[in-house]
Amino acid sequence: MRNQAGFRNQTDWEERAGQWLRDHDSEIFAGLGRFLRLPSISTLPEHAQDVQATARFLAEELQRLGVPRVELIPTAGHPLVYGEWTGVSGRPTVLIYGHYDVQPVDPVDQWKSDPFTPTLKEGDRLYARGASDDKGPVWAHLAALQALLQTAPGRSAGIAGSESPLPINVKLLFEGEEEVSSKHLMEFVNQNAQQLSCDLIVISDTTLYAPGVPAVCYGLRGIVACQIDVFGPAHDLHSGTYGGVVANPVHELSRLLASFHDEQGRVNVDGFYEDVRPLSAAERRSWASLPFDPHALEQEAGVPALAGEPVYTPLERMWARPTLEVNGIWGGFQGSGTKTIIPASAHAKVTCRLVPDQDPVRVLDCLEAAVRQRLPATVRAQFTRMEGGRAWIADPGHPALQKAAAALRQGFGAEPVFIRMGGSIPVVSTFSQALQKPVVLMGFSLPNENFHAPNEHVHLDNLRAGMRTLVHYWLNL
Amino acid sequence: MRNQAGFRNQTDWEERAGQWLRDHDSEIFAGLGRFLRLPSISTLPEHAQDVQATARFLAEELQRLGVPRVELIPTAGHPLVYGEWTGVSGRPTVLIYGHYDVQPVDPVDQWKSDPFTPTLKEGDRLYARGASDDKGPVWAHLAALQALLQTAPGRSAGIAGSESPLPINVKLLFEGEEEVSSKHLMEFVNQNAQQLSCDLIVISDTTLYAPGVPAVCYGLRGIVACQIDVFGPAHDLHSGTYGGVVANPVHELSRLLASFHDEQGRVNVDGFYEDVRPLSAAERRSWASLPFDPHALEQEAGVPALAGEPVYTPLERMWARPTLEVNGIWGGFQGSGTKTIIPASAHAKVTCRLVPDQDPVRVLDCLEAAVRQRLPATVRAQFTRMEGGRAWIADPGHPALQKAAAALRQGFGAEPVFIRMGGSIPVVSTFSQALQKPVVLMGFSLPNENFHAPNEHVHLDNLRAGMRTLVHYWLNL
Repeated sequence: MRNQAGFRNQTDWEERAGQWLRDHDSEIFAGLGRFLRLPSISTLPEHAQDVQATARFLAEELQRLGVPRVELIPTAGHPLVYGEWTGVSGRPTVLIYGHYDVQPVDPVDQWKSDPFTPTLKEGDRLYARGASDDKGPVWAHLAALQALLQTAPGRSAGIAGSESPLPINVKLLFEGEEEVSSKHLMEFVNQNAQQLSCDLIVISDTTLYAPGVPAVCYGLRGIVACQIDVFGPAHDLHSGTYGGVVANPVHELSRLLASFHDEQGRVNVDGFYEDVRPLSAAERRSWASLPFDPHALEQEAGVPALAGEPVYTPLERMWARPTLEVNGIWGGFQGSGTKTIIPASAHAKVTCRLVPDQDPVRVLDCLEAAVRQRLPATVRAQFTRMEGGRAWIADPGHPALQKAAAALRQGFGAEPVFIRMGGSIPVVSTFSQALQKPVVLMGFSLPNENFHAPNEHVHLDNLRAGMRTLVHYWLNL
Repeated sequence: MRNQAGFRNQTDWEERAGQWLRDHDSEIFAGLGRFLRLPSISTLPEHAQDVQATARFLAEELQRLGVPRVELIPTAGHPLVYGEWTGVSGRPTVLIYGHYDVQPVDPVDQWKSDPFTPTLKEGDRLYARGASDDKGPVWAHLAALQALLQTAPGRSAGIAGSESPLPINVKLLFEGEEEVSSKHLMEFVNQNAQQLSCDLIVISDTTLYAPGVPAVCYGLRGIVACQIDVFGPAHDLHSGTYGGVVANPVHELSRLLASFHDEQGRVNVDGFYEDVRPLSAAERRSWASLPFDPHALEQEAGVPALAGEPVYTPLERMWARPTLEVNGIWGGFQGSGTKTIIPASAHAKVTCRLVPDQDPVRVLDCLEAAVRQRLPATVRAQFTRMEGGRAWIADPGHPALQKAAAALRQGFGAEPVFIRMGGSIPVVSTFSQALQKPVVLMGFSLPNENFHAPNEHVHLDNLRAGMRTLVHYWLNL
């Protein structure tokens, strides 16, 4: 009854929730400050207790909010925090996912304020590790739910039993290992699809397209990784004594890596592009209409000129073309001065970004075949396969994505755009495949907020707009 | 008078000296043991006092021998030890050079006995750091001189004044920085050519051609070094966000390094071979007659197959062809697992082995021009020049070299060969140019005695043969 009444007056409710958010602004961000003070660096064993404490903090926040079922779910790694408030009949169930772990803070001497002492500077920028990725956006979700709860139509009359005063059914799932592979979360999702069943998954771990331009992201690239080791002599050899008759593994690795791209920046590996889904003319037109300044991108990256396949625009290259990237290389002497050796071995870390419909295993097969075929008999090679995940793509015309765009328009007061992104969020594919429901990616961070780098920060105004967006979204789903 | 009498009876003297060496064998090697116990690692600051102590030890040995003028010559680095015993009229002056410093002992856990506790094993192999390079050969020189002194014709009647009882005039010059560039020795030689004036320079810091095959080395390759740094983005970039539009410095460096050789293993840099002196037909014939087993070389190097320019034999490639070798490479992520970055930079250490008549500066000019020309505008390059030295070559027909061969034939009881070597001994060029006299390289070590590696050792029988060789050489010059 109450809920139906609520929905007749959803515009009122949205206004009340908006007012509540304005009235409780400092309280909300004080809470975010407590969240950001917890150094939940998931990759560093010495912070394992801090990660645990952050999980407990988040679970307690959900309880404080009134979520009737809150669980701290242990894994072989860091715990999951799960909250569930369902029972609203006739309304969709939304699974909200986020992560409470953060990246390391090295090099810490490049931070202008302590990474775990949230510091407000330059107007509305809050500096702290995790402010942008992903504690700020997680907090926006909690604040939006709280605003709806505090201003729910039946609230003044008291809430009966465990019946939810929310306009949607929610399942909240936060992990502490997003920065270290999400391995245990993915296991949990795959093994608990029933518990997590929903109509829609919403994730706020992406960014606006640009300042003032909110975005719904409907595509992410996949990724696959390998290591290539080239072995030559049994041990480093004297380059005077043996130079001229012994193949140098660094030369052979260089030659191999150089062979992976042609002069046009295209990946030169047989079969690499075979399954690539072509860009549609409509999509190319849509992206061509997005504001884009190549010089700004050059400046942001700190490069003298952009590179890549000339037949595609920069956005197309970043969002819809696969890449083969050497992430690291090493071999032989790296000290100061000179050491006259033929190194015994040389090594490269390689990742490929994948697009629909590339298969990670098939891509690695192609790559390994090229390695085996191209290296001469004077050296030996080892090819080690590492983790991978397919690209993810959604239909931007799906109602859940269209309503997300409408919510962003309302929350940010600006026209949203539909974009893809070049990065990979492996859990998106996991959710999509395990739960067989649409995933909506709507982020409140900006691309240049130094996530994973010193001086990470978030614009509080974007978090506020995000809260308004979510309030609108939940009321209008 | 005495000397002339001595030379009439030089065969007698040689026999007496040989007998003296046999009679004092354990005494001689006990002395070498004391020399080897001193950890004179020149590159490690914590061993600076040990290097000093080793210089003093050597100076005291010269004094004990009876050398009338012995000096410990300080330099900005480790001291030189100088001894001079001249005054023998009508006889040539020989400058004997060697080094008393040694390489570090890392990885020390791979040594089967303590590197500074000389240990006799497997018959006549003496294990210790420096045994082969170069304390053993230096000690052979001192022992040969001592044997000649102790058995000199006038000896039983007493030696008058400072008149030398030796069959030659000798200048002995030992340095403590051979393993760290010989910089101060080279300065000293260039600034003191008058003091060092001589008829011949003799150096025992090379090896036999093979077990049982003594060699006079009449050519060494030169060397020149540089570092190539390729800079891309201002800092490491997220390979998802930026992959496809930003040039990867590792790719560009790999492409550059790959371009440095053609498919035949020939260096593909304009001008690189321009000054290379062609091999004479006679030299090629001479080397073709040397015993050589390519499979033994493969096994020694631990490679599945030899590599290099197919139009030259392995010995020609090692001794008379220049090389361009990447001694080390690094850039980006080298840890375990995956880090999805486009690295900000990539780096390579490069050395070229030079042959007559290549000019080190010209070779670097060619290399730098190729770097500048071949890298695209999407990255920036830095080219840093490091130390270098020309190749050295002598005329194997020169009487000093022919007599050295005769001495080796006598000392080792085996037919010596004339060879070149692939390595570089920069001081050889320095002596040759500063003193304008022939240099004779006659070594008593073997190529596989693990110099610069764990378990360095020397075959005492070769040192004994070396002592006999030197006795014969000094008596027959």
